[in-house]
Amino acid sequence: MLLFSLKPHCKLIFLVLLLWVSLLVDSNSGVELDESLTYIWPLPSEFTSGNQTLTVDPALSLFVSGKGGYSNILKEGFERYKKIIFKHASGISLFQKLRGIRSVYDISELRIIVNSDSEELQLGVDESYALFVAKNDGKSIIGEATIEANTVYGALRGLETFSQMCAFDYETKSVQIYKAPWYIKDNPRFAFRGLMLDTSRHYFPIDVIKQIIESMSYAKLNVLHWHIIDEESFPLEVPSYPKLWNGAYTKWERYTVEDASEIVSFAKMRGIHVMAEVDVPGHAESWGAGYPDVWPSSSCREPLDVSKNFTFELISGILSDIRKIFPFELFHLGGDEVHTDCWTSTPHIKQWLNDHNMTAKDAYQYFVLKAQEIAVSKDWTPVNWEETFNSFPSKLNPRTVVHNWLGPGVCPKAVAKGFKCIFSNQGVWYLDHLDVPWNQVYSAEPLEGINNVSEQNLVLGGEVCMWGETVDASNVQQTIWPRAAAAAERLWSKREAVSVRNITSTILPRYHYFRCLLNRRGVQAAPATNFYARQPPTGAGSCYEQ
Amino acid sequence: MLLFSLKPHCKLIFLVLLLWVSLLVDSNSGVELDESLTYIWPLPSEFTSGNQTLTVDPALSLFVSGKGGYSNILKEGFERYKKIIFKHASGISLFQKLRGIRSVYDISELRIIVNSDSEELQLGVDESYALFVAKNDGKSIIGEATIEANTVYGALRGLETFSQMCAFDYETKSVQIYKAPWYIKDNPRFAFRGLMLDTSRHYFPIDVIKQIIESMSYAKLNVLHWHIIDEESFPLEVPSYPKLWNGAYTKWERYTVEDASEIVSFAKMRGIHVMAEVDVPGHAESWGAGYPDVWPSSSCREPLDVSKNFTFELISGILSDIRKIFPFELFHLGGDEVHTDCWTSTPHIKQWLNDHNMTAKDAYQYFVLKAQEIAVSKDWTPVNWEETFNSFPSKLNPRTVVHNWLGPGVCPKAVAKGFKCIFSNQGVWYLDHLDVPWNQVYSAEPLEGINNVSEQNLVLGGEVCMWGETVDASNVQQTIWPRAAAAAERLWSKREAVSVRNITSTILPRYHYFRCLLNRRGVQAAPATNFYARQPPTGAGSCYEQ
Repeated sequence: MLLFSLKPHCKLIFLVLLLWVSLLVDSNSGVELDESLTYIWPLPSEFTSGNQTLTVDPALSLFVSGKGGYSNILKEGFERYKKIIFKHASGISLFQKLRGIRSVYDISELRIIVNSDSEELQLGVDESYALFVAKNDGKSIIGEATIEANTVYGALRGLETFSQMCAFDYETKSVQIYKAPWYIKDNPRFAFRGLMLDTSRHYFPIDVIKQIIESMSYAKLNVLHWHIIDEESFPLEVPSYPKLWNGAYTKWERYTVEDASEIVSFAKMRGIHVMAEVDVPGHAESWGAGYPDVWPSSSCREPLDVSKNFTFELISGILSDIRKIFPFELFHLGGDEVHTDCWTSTPHIKQWLNDHNMTAKDAYQYFVLKAQEIAVSKDWTPVNWEETFNSFPSKLNPRTVVHNWLGPGVCPKAVAKGFKCIFSNQGVWYLDHLDVPWNQVYSAEPLEGINNVSEQNLVLGGEVCMWGETVDASNVQQTIWPRAAAAAERLWSKREAVSVRNITSTILPRYHYFRCLLNRRGVQAAPATNFYARQPPTGAGSCYEQ
Repeated sequence: MLLFSLKPHCKLIFLVLLLWVSLLVDSNSGVELDESLTYIWPLPSEFTSGNQTLTVDPALSLFVSGKGGYSNILKEGFERYKKIIFKHASGISLFQKLRGIRSVYDISELRIIVNSDSEELQLGVDESYALFVAKNDGKSIIGEATIEANTVYGALRGLETFSQMCAFDYETKSVQIYKAPWYIKDNPRFAFRGLMLDTSRHYFPIDVIKQIIESMSYAKLNVLHWHIIDEESFPLEVPSYPKLWNGAYTKWERYTVEDASEIVSFAKMRGIHVMAEVDVPGHAESWGAGYPDVWPSSSCREPLDVSKNFTFELISGILSDIRKIFPFELFHLGGDEVHTDCWTSTPHIKQWLNDHNMTAKDAYQYFVLKAQEIAVSKDWTPVNWEETFNSFPSKLNPRTVVHNWLGPGVCPKAVAKGFKCIFSNQGVWYLDHLDVPWNQVYSAEPLEGINNVSEQNLVLGGEVCMWGETVDASNVQQTIWPRAAAAAERLWSKREAVSVRNITSTILPRYHYFRCLLNRRGVQAAPATNFYARQPPTGAGSCYEQ
């Protein structure tokens, strides 16, 4: 309005002035956040926010209540998040110095109410929480910052969200919560939000596995699918068959029973299940390093010899031993990529097939079902890669969880037959496929093609898979992140929130922000939008644009 | 001998048997250590070892003596290394269980004697130590494991060496020391063993900088050369000129004074100096985001305006402020790649040059010397990239440390003129040159071409440089390691030990081992021998061969 009331030459001067000012602003900082977006990843299912900025006391104290409030899981979780939130030494800012201001904080206590004292971590455990953050006006009965959850695991999710609200402000040198008051009610869309790690192609030291688990908790992923052994190496100790880990690459690239238990307990402290996999019969050549009897012959080493009782004794022994390590109710039996040539070409197995009137395909089914029986007898729910379902769906144990990988459309078929299903379509959710851009990872929908609600309920969730041929301790986090986060939001947040149209303007800035958050927490998340995953940045620049 | 006394057909059976046994052994594990080598990196200057294997008590206790024994640096160091050494939950092995063995350990105490109580960390601080590890036979006056050092920093180096001797044995599930008894006397060849980090091209969060510092201590590197600011961004807070960090990429990609102090103190706890750099006048465009007056003009922004007093006031202000953060006696003033076109093309500077009867080259010298004066007035020893020495050696402050980078042969010239020198020949020690293989990094010799001992003494050491154009938090450790370790051994160990002929058989297995040690400690060291640095592994396999 002002502009139009000016005389023409004044208008010109005014416009030049405007241009000059905007150039000046530009030269300061190229990246500004779109404040209309919510920088919490994954996006909570319900929330409202305001426009106040609150300060958080570096001496933030924890006040617990409820039957589960005194859990050690909660206490240690709070201490972890406190370190994350107050990473920067709080200094007195120049601003405060000049004004002689002594800080008074808006938030100096976090109340956490946990209703249940059960720490049992099973599939579908209640991860819901409510989080309220508001300035205490003296009238409200709600404390300054409150998390309420039914279980400690819900409380951990709430702590993660709270930590993401807290940002260090470099001007005031204090931790601030933007856009308060916050009212959040949150729970995951899927109970199973997984990441698969392959420790057979490359061994990952336990410190590295812990780093991965820790970072999973930042994205609210909750299942580490541990593909422990495969044809290349057998790193795990199995006390009943102590020569099995002779199949490790070296005597240092191994996991003791205690190491594995330590990993399970480290994960549990973060509300993360560990689903172990013993992939039979196809991916098991390394077993023969210790027990060559399971090879069809010394020159033809896979699949495991279907004709020998010893093969199943060994499987049973392994499962008995590791059942003590892995309390999670799901156990992965593999069953993928079984090429039966060694069975049909090895005389004693060929003979056995003839004697039992079996084709190689029959023998594959026989093997898988026998392995399922063993797993079920140990009180495990068996998970199999989709080939078993594709080959003999009607024979599978009805409790079988079908793990999709080959392509789209498998979960719809599996749930139509009453099976539970995990979505990992390799075209979008195999992290070793480096050419899948983040938006394709993000847009993949586990429920696609499933319209019936009762069938939808059979989809447990999904999992991104980090196969290990070209990842080792040097680059695994860089290959996992940030694309695993794209899947994590798909699996946690409401379908309508993640299925918006223009994800470049609505999701990408949040995705950049979360990638930089991972970096700030010491996680080696790679540039978000490079053509190939884990590519280095192409030149100098801000994290928030790369 | 046995073989030749056998009958012919027995010989054949025997040979087949031998072949079969060796095949069996092969199938267990492909990688065996050459036990004649010493797997401590960098190699100590003097050592003897034996052939005993000793066990180490997971409850290892520290017994200190000497004036410096009660240092907090020592105490915290011991706690850090204890976590590293006893990373694996100590289990009772099956072997022990079967035999009902309750462990008794050979080493249950580490004695550390520190003679001086000074914690001053200056260039050339005494880092020597002696380390003895032997089974206590009841007669010896030496304890089971003893480190003796003149300073806490020497003791820290001894702790690192001790930690590398300790290996977790997966069979007995205990930490063992191989090849005992050990008698080590060790000290570094060079006082300055550096790594340069560039936080201007990409911002590194403080957690990531701490990870880098921590990993430096594993290779006994002792100087973090912090190239804080450059033309791309100005991340550091300067209280006297609070608009300078407007030149940061974003408001979150910054270091407060407290952050920087925290980094310096974190480094000191590990015996690592932090040498700050403020690179003038060439690499300073980002200063103008806050103070555009230092640009020659808004369209021609580098080098800093030589004609204005304000430019030097600003430099003086920055140096005064950061002097309080960085106690190290060396301070890097840059001085490289100064292209003076903006000076000769900007009218007011051209006029100033005329008025002062200066060429652009004269003005470059004028600028550098004036900056040196400011640094010296703050009680700093100035370091400059070699261009200043190449351009006007006789004018430089005689205390100047010449920092070589352009190519070989510069340190010989600098020390011949009485200057101190740091070796960083870009052809071998620029880590952003991804095509330099490990053996070329390893073979680079800072004293090459310098035969006179008094001139050799002027070479402070060397530094590998990690320029930041294509590294960020996702891949910086992977690009630094393991090649930085090759330089680290060159800088620490005796020249004759690192200048052996066939490094493929004598050094490479140790280099592989150290890379895997870094991985075990959670450091993302890349495969050791890939053609390009930081390349992913090319396929499945053991860390010890990749």
